Order: sequence, then C-alpha cells, then structure tokens
Amino acid sequence: MIDNKTIGKIEKIVGKLNATAEKEDLICYSYDAFNLRYLPDLVVFPESAQEVSELLRLANEQGFPVVPRGAGSGLTGGSVPIRGGVVVSFERMNRILEIDEEDMKAVVEPGVVTADFHREVEKVGLFYPPDPASEEFSTLGGNVAECAGGLRAVKYGVTRDYVLGLELVLPTGEIVTAGVETVKGVVGYDLTRLIVGSEGTLGIVTKIILKLLPKPEARATLRAFFARGEDAIQTAARIIRERFLPATLEFMDGESLRCVEDYLKIGLPAEAEAMLLIEDDGDPVLLKKNIRRMEEICRERGTQVELAGNEKEAEDMWRPRKAISPALGRIRPRRFNEDVTVLRSRMEELIRVVSGICKRYQVINVNFGHAGDGNIHVNILYDPEDKEELGRAEEAIEEVLKAVVEMKGTISGEHGIGVAKAPYLHFELGDQGIAVMKKIKQAFDPNGIMNPGKIFASGNGTE
Amino acid sequence: MIDNKTIGKIEKIVGKLNATAEKEDLICYSYDAFNLRYLPDLVVFPESAQEVSELLRLANEQGFPVVPRGAGSGLTGGSVPIRGGVVVSFERMNRILEIDEEDMKAVVEPGVVTADFHREVEKVGLFYPPDPASEEFSTLGGNVAECAGGLRAVKYGVTRDYVLGLELVLPTGEIVTAGVETVKGVVGYDLTRLIVGSEGTLGIVTKIILKLLPKPEARATLRAFFARGEDAIQTAARIIRERFLPATLEFMDGESLRCVEDYLKIGLPAEAEAMLLIEDDGDPVLLKKNIRRMEEICRERGTQVELAGNEKEAEDMWRPRKAISPALGRIRPRRFNEDVTVLRSRMEELIRVVSGICKRYQVINVNFGHAGDGNIHVNILYDPEDKEELGRAEEAIEEVLKAVVEMKGTISGEHGIGVAKAPYLHFELGDQGIAVMKKIKQAFDPNGIMNPGKIFASGNGTE
Repeated sequence: MIDNKTIGKIEKIVGKLNATAEKEDLICYSYDAFNLRYLPDLVVFPESAQEVSELLRLANEQGFPVVPRGAGSGLTGGSVPIRGGVVVSFERMNRILEIDEEDMKAVVEPGVVTADFHREVEKVGLFYPPDPASEEFSTLGGNVAECAGGLRAVKYGVTRDYVLGLELVLPTGEIVTAGVETVKGVVGYDLTRLIVGSEGTLGIVTKIILKLLPKPEARATLRAFFARGEDAIQTAARIIRERFLPATLEFMDGESLRCVEDYLKIGLPAEAEAMLLIEDDGDPVLLKKNIRRMEEICRERGTQVELAGNEKEAEDMWRPRKAISPALGRIRPRRFNEDVTVLRSRMEELIRVVSGICKRYQVINVNFGHAGDGNIHVNILYDPEDKEELGRAEEAIEEVLKAVVEMKGTISGEHGIGVAKAPYLHFELGDQGIAVMKKIKQAFDPNGIMNPGKIFASGNGTE
Repeated sequence: MIDNKTIGKIEKIVGKLNATAEKEDLICYSYDAFNLRYLPDLVVFPESAQEVSELLRLANEQGFPVVPRGAGSGLTGGSVPIRGGVVVSFERMNRILEIDEEDMKAVVEPGVVTADFHREVEKVGLFYPPDPASEEFSTLGGNVAECAGGLRAVKYGVTRDYVLGLELVLPTGEIVTAGVETVKGVVGYDLTRLIVGSEGTLGIVTKIILKLLPKPEARATLRAFFARGEDAIQTAARIIRERFLPATLEFMDGESLRCVEDYLKIGLPAEAEAMLLIEDDGDPVLLKKNIRRMEEICRERGTQVELAGNEKEAEDMWRPRKAISPALGRIRPRRFNEDVTVLRSRMEELIRVVSGICKRYQVINVNFGHAGDGNIHVNILYDPEDKEELGRAEEAIEEVLKAVVEMKGTISGEHGIGVAKAPYLHFELGDQGIAVMKKIKQAFDPNGIMNPGKIFASGNGTE
C-alpha cells in the first residue's frame, strides 16, 4: 500500500486531475486479456517524460511498484499490477509527433493506437507492417513492450524490426535516448532492441522512432479449404519451400472452423478440416504471378480454393479468422491461448504432438495462427468454475510447452512471458539463461520497482 | 603481463600446440585495419565453447584481458589487445555446422569467412545479404561483434537483422544460448541483439544461428556519372523518394574518382564530379521495370549513364568502387575512414558541411559510400610522419562528428566505436546514455576482462 503522503507527492507530479484511486477506476486498470485481476493503488496519466521520470525517482526511493500499461490487450498478464502500486497509463501521451515522408520514419508517443497509426501513415503512401490482432485498440507502446507480431510478420517481421530508437525513462529516473533516426547505427550497446520485448520491466518508453516502408501498391487474398489438417500444413510448407514469403499465411484447424461456423453461420464447408488464408502485396505484376502460383499449389491438396475478386470478397474471406476469439468464448468461457513457435518444417509434427497431449488430458483443443511463421496458437479451452478441467488444461499446457522446447521451438513467438509463462521460462532458457537476464534486470532496476513479478517466476527479478 | 604459471594453465585448456607467445606470432595479432599496434601476451586457438569457457573462468579469476578476434579487418581497433592479455582467434572454429534449406537458416562457428559462407549458401539457392567490403577475409563472428553492414544494406539491412540466436560464453565463464532457431521468439530479454554489435565486450560468441533468404533470381547493375556532387546526391534522394530501395546505392565523389583513375587508368570520365552505382535484384520482370525507371531518373541529371549488359560489364562497373582503398593509400599512407550516417534527406547538407570543415583545416577529404543508407564514408587522408597534418586531421574529424550529431545523425553507421571513436561517444549518447551502457557492461563483466578499453573511453567500462 502506498501511503497518503506519497500519493500526495504523486498527484503533485502528474496533477491532481491526472491521478485516481477511485475503486471503479482501479478496477478498469486491474486486468488485461489474460485471466488475472489485481487492483493497483493508484492510476496515473502522465503527459511527459519529465513526469514519468519524477514518478520513477520517487518509486525508486520509496520502493513501490510501477506498472506501465497500453490498452491492456496483452495475453500474458504483462500490464496487470499483481503487486499493486501505480499503474501508468498513456491516454494523454497519444500523439503522433511526426510522420517524415521523405525519410520514411515516424516519431510517436507510446499511447498511439496501432490501427490509428496504420491509417495515418497510409494516408501519405507509407506503411507500418506490425499488425497484432488487437490493433484496433492496442497501443504502439504496448507493442514495443511485448515486441508484438501480427498477421503480416511472415514477410515483414515484427515490431523489433521497425523500432529505430526510443526515449526511455530508467527505473532510477534518468531519461535516456537509445538508437537513431537514421537507417543504420551501431554506437554502443543496442539499448533499443534490449528494451523492445522487455515487457515494461526495464523502464518506461516515452517516445518511439519507427521505420516506415512504402505502402505496397496492390494486395491479393486467397483462401483454401482442406479435407485434412495435414494437407493444409503441407501446402503451407510447400509454399515456403518454393520460396514464397507472402505477407500473411494463416491456418485454422477443423475445430476452429466449426466453432466459427456455429457462431457466424456463413456457410463454411462442413467437411473442411483446415483452412489456409493467404494474403500478399507488392508490385501488381509480380503479385499476380505469385498469387497464381500459390493458388495452384493450394489446388493440389485443397478441396475448395478461392481468389478474392475485390476488397469486399477479401474481407469476407477474413471473417472466420477474425471471429475466432468470440466464437471460442461460446464453448468455454476461458482458454489458454499459447503462441508456441516451431521451425516451419515441424508444424505438422507440432500439431500431431499437441493433439496427442490434448486427447490424453481430454481437453478441448483448437489450433490456428501464423503458419507462415511456424507460430501456432494452440488454444486449450476450459471453464474456470470446473477446477478439475482447469487442472487438466494446465497440465496439458505444460506438456505442450515442454514438447515445443524439445522440438527446438520457442514457448512464445509473440505474446511474451508476463505472468502466464513465467513458470515455464526455465524450460527454454535454463538456469544460466535466466541468471544472465536477471543480472540485466538488476543493473537497470536495483530496487525492483518496474513491473515486478513479470517474466521471472520468483521474486522481483532482482534476487 | 600474464605469469608463466597462468600461461601453463591456458596451454592446458586449449592444448599446447594451440597457444603461442612467439614474438613473430604476437605481432600478427597486434593490429587490425585501424592504425594501432599492441602486442598480446598470448594468442590461443580454441576449438570449442567449453575451452573458451574455461579460459574466461580463469581470466575472470586472475583478471587478465581477453580479446576475441575474427580476421582483424575491423576499422576501429576493436580486436587490438590494447592492454595485452590473451587474443582468442577462431581459425579452428570455422565450420559451417548446418545449412537448413527447408527452414532457411544456418548454424556456423564464429571463424567462418563471410564470403565463403555466401558461396556455400548460394550453392543451394539461398542468400545471406550482409556483405561488408572485407567479406573475402572478415569472419561471421567479427561481423556479429561489429554488427557489420555492407553494400546491400539499403534493401536488406545489416547483420543484426539476420542473427536469430547465439551460443555465448559470458566473461564469467557460463555458456548460455540466446535467441531461437525459429523465425519468431520473444522469451525474456533480447540477449541476441544486445550481443550483436557489442564489440566483444560482453562475452565470446561460439555459435551463430543465421536467417537466410531465397537467392534473388536476377540482378542488374547501373552506373551514372555526374558533373556535380549535388546532382548525384539529388538523384539518389529522388530514387528513394520514388520509393525504390535497390540492393545497393553507392556514391563516389570527384576526388575519389580521380584517385581511382590515377591508380587504375580505366578511362573514367575526367570531368565527372560524382558517380552513383546502383545494383538491384529480385524477380526478373519487376527488376527490369525498376532498373529502367532508376536509369531514367539518373539520366535527368547524369552526364553518362550505363546499364550493365552482362556479368562482366557489371564487374567492370564495380572496379572503381572496390579500388578506393588502395588508391587512397597512394596519396597519403593513412586516413581516418569515418562511417557517419545521416538522414537520407540530409546527405547533401552533410557533404557541404564536411567540405567546409576540411577546407578550413586544409586536409585532404574524399567522400564515398552508401548513399542509399545516408551512410557516407568521410575520409580524411594524412601522413602519420607529419604530426602537424595529423593534428589538423584529428581536429577536422572531431568537428565532423559533432556536426553529424547536430544533424541528428550517428557517428557510426557500421564500423562501431572500438578505440577509434571512444573519445567521441559522449557526443551522441551523453553521460546518461553512457552510464546505462556501463551498467550493462558491469552486469556481464564485473572484473572488466572482456576486451577492455573498447567503446568506453575511460577505464574498462566498469568504473
């Protein structure tokens, strides 16, 4: 608990109107898209790096936790204040400070909503590829904290690949700038990329310099259904083996298709056991050639293959993929939504292994996701009221994560560790790997005030 | 000085035949492509991470410096043992362990020569873009340590963009693996990218997992001469403004053209004050369309514009660019070869500012480099015997670096800091920025044994 005197000091830093300890406000900032709820003591809305700096200086002195928060759309509990303290929300730091058309870069504050940013840069013929599923509400600051991926990562990479530089407030209050505005730069350690994906545990980002690309001239969308899951996975593998890297190469399994059909009633083929959704972009002539060849590849094993003739048809093709989350919610109220990633050549094996584990534990399993990246969203559904089912789901998840590491995959391709995967971190990193990361944490945050309890399962990451 | 007992222990670790303290051997490992010479006490040639680990454990106990070394082709003194100690050379750890065609990645030891690796992956239709000028002798380990760029960085990025994961021996001896083999991964802090570009100051890399691309189907080369430097720079800017990102977009100024012509006598146009060399690759149809348009753009301001008709003509077009280094050596024995980088829109301003400074100090200035990245190799030539000229050259360099930082550029786009630019680090990072990097150094290397005296101007980076 933060005492009243300290609360008074914090109110002085951000302004009394920009801090709240009202119960109904605190509840709004107590959870994210993972299933955890912890009330903060206070929520503040700073408007400058200077205010954030003063707040962190105070926190570092007094030892209270500070938890930065974007839109709370994270899937691993990263922004949940599990030890109370102050939630720092960026509603007031949401300006696009600059879009530089000539040098193709932008400078933004952390609270800018991802999709708003997409729209703004596209207006001037530019393009910011990272497009996490939550783009309509997630913020760029949150994307940086989690190194968000998205649907277009196959061809374009993830958030890390677009962050040129940062303004960062260290847990001890110093304001530092990292990185460059130029396209190249190797001065000292790569602080920028150390911060990207550090889940708000090493400091608070107050400004982001993003690299932009020219907006692709044209786009094409292709969808294929398959009678067997293996056929879809083998088709995806074949596309990659022929050296295509389409912008998007999404997979849905039979279970997820049936869930979505039950929900949307849009006449998805009843016998389909898998779907691939492929989108590519670029020069119109090359795009046409490439999409035609990918269409041929799909026809070899697919039962129904369609190329979108216009924007409307493309949108319709996307509907099932975008409806998965609400559709799954109708079957069980909760789910573990994993983002394991394996080598693309081992996706078929992954799905076989996952199915085996889930059958053994008799849990409902749905798989979909980014086939082009080997990043499959293994979902295990459960009812939190049914403790016995929850227990089986937890055991199944643990086995899945172990199997993924044995397959030389990673337990998180894009969601991060947060609270959700902290207990499994050692599967992948081992004690030595965790020890070196804790040393970095200690160097940045000697008093363990920055988003404690995340990434590292025990302590605040500093012991 | 390392005592004989310790030398005995080191010989036991790597094998007596794989360590040398012979004067003539030590001399070979006393310098790189920067103008410094310091003899190490010992040079060792380990063959495994285990041996490196034992060596570092011993060094950490006894406090002697350890300096990892690739081919010694670095331009900032990064591999020079300026405080003596043990140079670790990777001649015996030079195997390509795996080229995975299906998942488009490779696993290599640090001693693999960059160009050998290019050739091996290209044999199976794959492609590793980073191509520093020293590729025929530089090693992949050295490329990782410096985050090497190269000619193709405009379109393809730098070494950082291709390192998926690493095996690393910490200065305290632990062997850790960082990163992933998959195309995505966000588990814990991004140790991989923290190590890339850390100039051998945070540990020794013993294995590298590299991402590969499909080999581009076709390539085209275009060269244009201009009557004024501004015309070339404006043409480069125009190419970028039309949203082309060719693989290579190189610039040479009039001085460098005349130097090369004096040296090669290949009939470069005498009146030319600048040259652009453009190379692009990819799908043949798209490539043809793009190169034709870039040719048109060049013709608007160019005095002589040629498109290579075949491989031989392309090679001829590259000759002047590749001959710069030996050609400049004929004018003055030594030069400062800076790699400052500015926003692409400010290259014209950079060259104007640099010319002004060099005129004021009456030093010989030659500029060439990666116009597509805003990364210009500002060269100032001098005779080390002429102390007065050397002094003027040093003052001019300092002013150039200050001006670049004022222009929001970076003092190093691709060569790193090493010893050469350590005195100027604070221009760009400020005291706060340096302090946070020193904390990282301290966390990894509490006794300051790893490549001391690099990056940070004072001390071993830990005080």
